[in-house]
Amino acid sequence: MAIAKAGATNNTFGSLVTGANVMKVPGLNTLGVSMARIDYAPGGINPPHTHPRATEMIFVLEGELDVGFITTSNVLITKHIVKGEVFAFPRGLVHFQQNNGDVPAAVVAGFNSQLPGTQSIATTLFASSPSVPDHVLTKTFQVGTKEIQKIKSRLAPKK
Amino acid sequence: MAIAKAGATNNTFGSLVTGANVMKVPGLNTLGVSMARIDYAPGGINPPHTHPRATEMIFVLEGELDVGFITTSNVLITKHIVKGEVFAFPRGLVHFQQNNGDVPAAVVAGFNSQLPGTQSIATTLFASSPSVPDHVLTKTFQVGTKEIQKIKSRLAPKK
Amino acid sequence: MAIAKAGATNNTFGSLVTGANVMKVPGLNTLGVSMARIDYAPGGINPPHTHPRATEMIFVLEGELDVGFITTSNVLITKHIVKGEVFAFPRGLVHFQQNNGDVPAAVVAGFNSQLPGTQSIATTLFASSPSVPDHVLTKTFQVGTKEIQKIKSRLAPKK
Amino acid sequence: MAIAKAGATNNTFGSLVTGANVMKVPGLNTLGVSMARIDYAPGGINPPHTHPRATEMIFVLEGELDVGFITTSNVLITKHIVKGEVFAFPRGLVHFQQNNGDVPAAVVAGFNSQLPGTQSIATTLFASSPSVPDHVLTKTFQVGTKEIQKIKSRLAPKK
Amino acid sequence: MAIAKAGATNNTFGSLVTGANVMKVPGLNTLGVSMARIDYAPGGINPPHTHPRATEMIFVLEGELDVGFITTSNVLITKHIVKGEVFAFPRGLVHFQQNNGDVPAAVVAGFNSQLPGTQSIATTLFASSPSVPDHVLTKTFQVGTKEIQKIKSRLAPKK
Amino acid sequence: MAIAKAGATNNTFGSLVTGANVMKVPGLNTLGVSMARIDYAPGGINPPHTHPRATEMIFVLEGELDVGFITTSNVLITKHIVKGEVFAFPRGLVHFQQNNGDVPAAVVAGFNSQLPGTQSIATTLFASSPSVPDHVLTKTFQVGTKEIQKIKSRLAPKK
Repeated sequence: MAIAKAGATNNTFGSLVTGANVMKVPGLNTLGVSMARIDYAPGGINPPHTHPRATEMIFVLEGELDVGFITTSNVLITKHIVKGEVFAFPRGLVHFQQNNGDVPAAVVAGFNSQLPGTQSIATTLFASSPSVPDHVLTKTFQVGTKEIQKIKSRLAPKK
Repeated sequence: MAIAKAGATNNTFGSLVTGANVMKVPGLNTLGVSMARIDYAPGGINPPHTHPRATEMIFVLEGELDVGFITTSNVLITKHIVKGEVFAFPRGLVHFQQNNGDVPAAVVAGFNSQLPGTQSIATTLFASSPSVPDHVLTKTFQVGTKEIQKIKSRLAPKK
Repeated sequence: MAIAKAGATNNTFGSLVTGANVMKVPGLNTLGVSMARIDYAPGGINPPHTHPRATEMIFVLEGELDVGFITTSNVLITKHIVKGEVFAFPRGLVHFQQNNGDVPAAVVAGFNSQLPGTQSIATTLFASSPSVPDHVLTKTFQVGTKEIQKIKSRLAPKK
Repeated sequence: MAIAKAGATNNTFGSLVTGANVMKVPGLNTLGVSMARIDYAPGGINPPHTHPRATEMIFVLEGELDVGFITTSNVLITKHIVKGEVFAFPRGLVHFQQNNGDVPAAVVAGFNSQLPGTQSIATTLFASSPSVPDHVLTKTFQVGTKEIQKIKSRLAPKK
Repeated sequence: MAIAKAGATNNTFGSLVTGANVMKVPGLNTLGVSMARIDYAPGGINPPHTHPRATEMIFVLEGELDVGFITTSNVLITKHIVKGEVFAFPRGLVHFQQNNGDVPAAVVAGFNSQLPGTQSIATTLFASSPSVPDHVLTKTFQVGTKEIQKIKSRLAPKK
Repeated sequence: MAIAKAGATNNTFGSLVTGANVMKVPGLNTLGVSMARIDYAPGGINPPHTHPRATEMIFVLEGELDVGFITTSNVLITKHIVKGEVFAFPRGLVHFQQNNGDVPAAVVAGFNSQLPGTQSIATTLFASSPSVPDHVLTKTFQVGTKEIQKIKSRLAPKK
């Protein structure tokens, strides 16, 4: 299994996750670990998301990143990390990484689950199938249907 | 410990969670369980949120609810449940309950953790302290700063 | 899955447990939680029992109950709880609930296992199949065969 | 730590458990194992009991034993085991061993907990402190107060 | 299942392990425990080995043993134990037992896994199939190929 | 915490492990993950060792490696891996990595424990403090005291 090459990052978020979990590496079954490589274009973001079944620890392969997670007390913890530095995102908490530099960045991530699972928050709420009803989202974000539908259209899967 | 009374639901979301976890019931320490009572005004919502450390199972005490969660394959699972029915939200997945009826609703929830923790998604992203930077959120939701700041202002803590 | 109705409590113990575990709700598989509704006639008892695989936490739906469990130091812990109150029974310990009031009582219980299992002590020792030998029970309870057989006859399954 | 000598078995049940758990062997802390030696006089019984936190596996050091446990389906599983044989009692289930032979018997037990805990059923129900109320026990065993008090007096701690 | 008889110890190491794990006792499945009997000729050794999935606790059935394990700080912990004494080897650490007495010795071991697994270090490194390359072992033990091949020949499986 | 720089590999084994575990990154406490960077000189080896408390998964940062582990059935599993490839070593099993290339190699490793622990087999057996007795090692490796003392002298800590 190789996750050697930089993933193609010319997409909406300017980032790509290439997983090496039990779905791709069957030998990981029962071992309780997996890895992933994440590439970021300049300006790219791995947008706020959670892993329901794993803590994640990253090692910066190249470039620089602004990383953060929010605690259950609603406190945002952030750090600027550079090549060779590590950072951990506790199990189940919303977190993100952004490349605010001028050159590509990349990390390798280790997880304490063979299948961490991912919920990318914006996609989860605005682009699921079927769709989360507008009246749930207007209540949730306290804005009108117009704003909700705008976000939905922006995040809709490309055809 | 009593969670007998209906919580006051005259707030932004029209719902209130009254927890009976280890912070309030010290005897739960090491026992790996907790409960909560959730009250919903007519039209009220317990907006999309996650519990990083627990699966949740609810029992409807009164009224009716539309409940749902989104899987890691981004599929929305929903159900309409009435008094006496149960429903489970798997550990770490985004879920919500909404009272679309004309009368108040209430549930009692059981958790397989003495301290499940909660991240209410909208509040986590738009009302943390310090604030998640606008440029993270514009990238994430693919809208402009104006929309982001609008949501932030709507969800800002009341003074 | 509904556990809405009060169970029929016109039986030996004056109580009925209606479970919502993985045998009845297959979707609970791997989720590690389950619930049950327990109804008690006036004077009814959920007699001393254990759950080998779960801690239990109850919420009183209606009426009042005298509840208790015995610790591994052989200390009896008891409490009188009313509607809306909660109480926890640690994993594996002998516990019971009794309705000493004049009106029916009911609780909803949460467990940190999808299949807690139950051993109702009196039935386990005096009404198993095959039967626990009399000489085991006379030694255990330090009484004669007559008393043992009397209890066995009282607890024998109705035909 | 030695559990070499046969325990004194001239007591009510004709058996004695000598534990080697974390309370006696502090080095077992965090290791998740413990052992015990159990001695049985001819006719002696280790009466029905549970270990809330461990499965137990025994190895017969000398003599012969009739052993049994009851499942959560209320089925009694029994076996006659002799020197050198092993048997396992699943976590939390009621079980017992009886020496129906003419000579002393002994086993060494292994547990998958550094502190398994024990609830000896008869003592738990009839000799706890404070006492389980008579009306709980009469309901539970479906006999009168006279029988209950008889068992209580027989099992009362020796002064 | 019986592990009653002393195993034949007229082999290279002068010891024999007779396991009672889930491969031999299918009923142990999911129970998380197993046992083994180990016999030692005078001068016999159960050479340094690990159990990847279990802590082990032993009880001396007869004779005397010198036992030891090495911590992750590379400290050797040793003890001389006699009949009736117990000792524990923490999960995954290299350990051994040697009978330096004039008479046979034996222990019964309890494990907190139904299938602890064993890696006998010398056999693992010098007699695996296929063979660990000589250049790995010369580097590892800082000696020449001659010494490595000598050990390999001594530990090669008997034909 | 940075593990960015190549460790100094001019030592006995031609490799260096730089850990990022809870002893160095206190914030990892309770999170159940850690990482390490391992550097290898040309010809360098990370000699056979175990991690008692973790499975390890590695990602090759640069160079090429021959990696292997031995199963509990004494089968050697090996693979040649290059930059960007991943490989996993199951919890508690003896494993090693060797750089048979002409240029330095490096990996980043992820563990499913905040403190995996390490037992480097040769050092554990031949350079512990106090020393494992010669007669244990001669029996174990089936060679004479001369060979054992030779290995001990080669692996003795540098003064």
